[in-house]
Amino acid sequence: MKKQFVVIGCGRFGTSVAKTLYNMGYEVLVIDKNEETIQSIADSVTHAVQADATDEKSIKSLGIRNFDVAVVTIGSNIQSSILVTLMVKELGVEYVITKAQNELHAKVLYKIGADRVVFPEREMGVRVAHNLVSSNIMDYIELAPDYSIVEIATLDEWIGKSLVELNMRSVYGVNVMAIKHGPNIDISPDAEDLIEEGDVLVVIGHNDDIREIEKK
Amino acid sequence: MKKQFVVIGCGRFGTSVAKTLYNMGYEVLVIDKNEETIQSIADSVTHAVQADATDEKSIKSLGIRNFDVAVVTIGSNIQSSILVTLMVKELGVEYVITKAQNELHAKVLYKIGADRVVFPEREMGVRVAHNLVSSNIMDYIELAPDYSIVEIATLDEWIGKSLVELNMRSVYGVNVMAIKHGPNIDISPDAEDLIEEGDVLVVIGHNDDIREIEKK
Ligand SMILES: Nc1ncnc2c1ncn2[C@@H]1O[C@H](COP(=O)(O)OP(=O)(O)OP(=O)(O)O)[C@@H](O)[C@H]1O
Ligand SMILES: Nc1ncnc2c1ncn2[C@@H]1O[C@H](COP(=O)(O)OP(=O)(O)OP(=O)(O)O)[C@@H](O)[C@H]1O
Ligand SMILES: [Ca+2]
Ligand SMILES: [Ca+2]
Ligand SMILES: [Ca+2]
Ligand SMILES: [Ca+2]
Repeated sequence: MKKQFVVIGCGRFGTSVAKTLYNMGYEVLVIDKNEETIQSIADSVTHAVQADATDEKSIKSLGIRNFDVAVVTIGSNIQSSILVTLMVKELGVEYVITKAQNELHAKVLYKIGADRVVFPEREMGVRVAHNLVSSNIMDYIELAPDYSIVEIATLDEWIGKSLVELNMRSVYGVNVMAIKHGPNIDISPDAEDLIEEGDVLVVIGHNDDIREIEKK
Repeated sequence: MKKQFVVIGCGRFGTSVAKTLYNMGYEVLVIDKNEETIQSIADSVTHAVQADATDEKSIKSLGIRNFDVAVVTIGSNIQSSILVTLMVKELGVEYVITKAQNELHAKVLYKIGADRVVFPEREMGVRVAHNLVSSNIMDYIELAPDYSIVEIATLDEWIGKSLVELNMRSVYGVNVMAIKHGPNIDISPDAEDLIEEGDVLVVIGHNDDIREIEKK
């Protein structure tokens, strides 16, 4: 049976989670205390209910314990976020993921049973900052503490060369995983494919090696 | 010379952008109208100034036009966000990136000259939703409209097999780029390496093919 999701709090992050899950075909209940918010999302999810999630009675009456996953995205009100996370966990929801404001908030959330804590703004901030520092790095994704995936705009010196000639692995210590060419993407680039002006290389590597390319 | 950055608005997203840039060694000026916010970030950036960014005089007096990149992260007040973006662009900042609330907001920002518009909460919402639907997909990153990079927890049937035996390319249509093994990551996995229990595979592929693995 398909997993059932409840998204509690429907700001920008919660809305995005809820709509994406619904578009993938899952059943999604959304709860927000704001009536306007509920009205504007009603057509994009399975059910949308106006309620204060800190009110245990109304939460119980919605049958929250029958859901497999709860996503708590009450962002600004830390106290409510903690209270609601604790409540849904105690009601028996198996997996609870909560949006946190800061480290202290996250620590409390884990202590009371949250299965995962996310910092959407912070994580995107790191990603955008890395995109900004270099004119040739177009996107930056952390993969592990020391490894990242980046999109690199073709350097002039690469144009007309093949991957085999460029030999990114020994010259820069990174691996080319894909090449974006206009609207197309080749996820198994051939060693003989020539790099064209405007191509974007998707590479994986150690942060130290990527930093060397960033400097170019 | 190193690029100079000004971050206008210092919520969770702006703070993360500013701190990350500063930690990478760049000069970062932060402006926020809230005095407390400024005090709490002052030690983590080059300069932090309390000012209303919609006030052209104070913005000018800060020498904004000398900065290479402006990051406008006033989130909730759409009118201020538009006004400030327009102003810094007209003052001559070459690259202006602005956080948007919704599509309409983004459209206006591009019209008035923003070089890039970001939706941090929305983008992270999509990513978290994909992580949630499947017990084996651990992370999900959109690469192009139809292609993604995902981290997949090893399925039981994969344990003890080599990449060559698994033949992910023909069986699932995806390519394995890296294998995470505890705290280590191998970004050039050998065809003969055996998959162990607990390994995480980083794969790249078409969304349709990835969805087939998500269902496993
Ligand atoms: N007790 C509550 N019960 C139900 N919904 C709530 C409760 N408290 C807050 N909300 C809702 O949660 C949503 C998110 O809250 P808020 O806007 O404070 O978070 P945010 O982190 O700024 O959101 P964003 O994802 O837009 O950045 C809002 O729509 C708000 O109405
Ligand atoms: N006119 C202005 N001048 C300077 N700073 C401003 C102005 N308007 C808003 N700010 C600041 O911008 C910051 C971000 O604004 P706000 O909290 O509304 O956005 P947000 O999108 O909810 O942020 P977050 O990144 O935390 O999700 C706040 O610290 C606020 O004080
Ligand atoms: Ca936010
Ligand atoms: Ca090919
Ligand atoms: Ca907010
Ligand atoms: Ca290897």
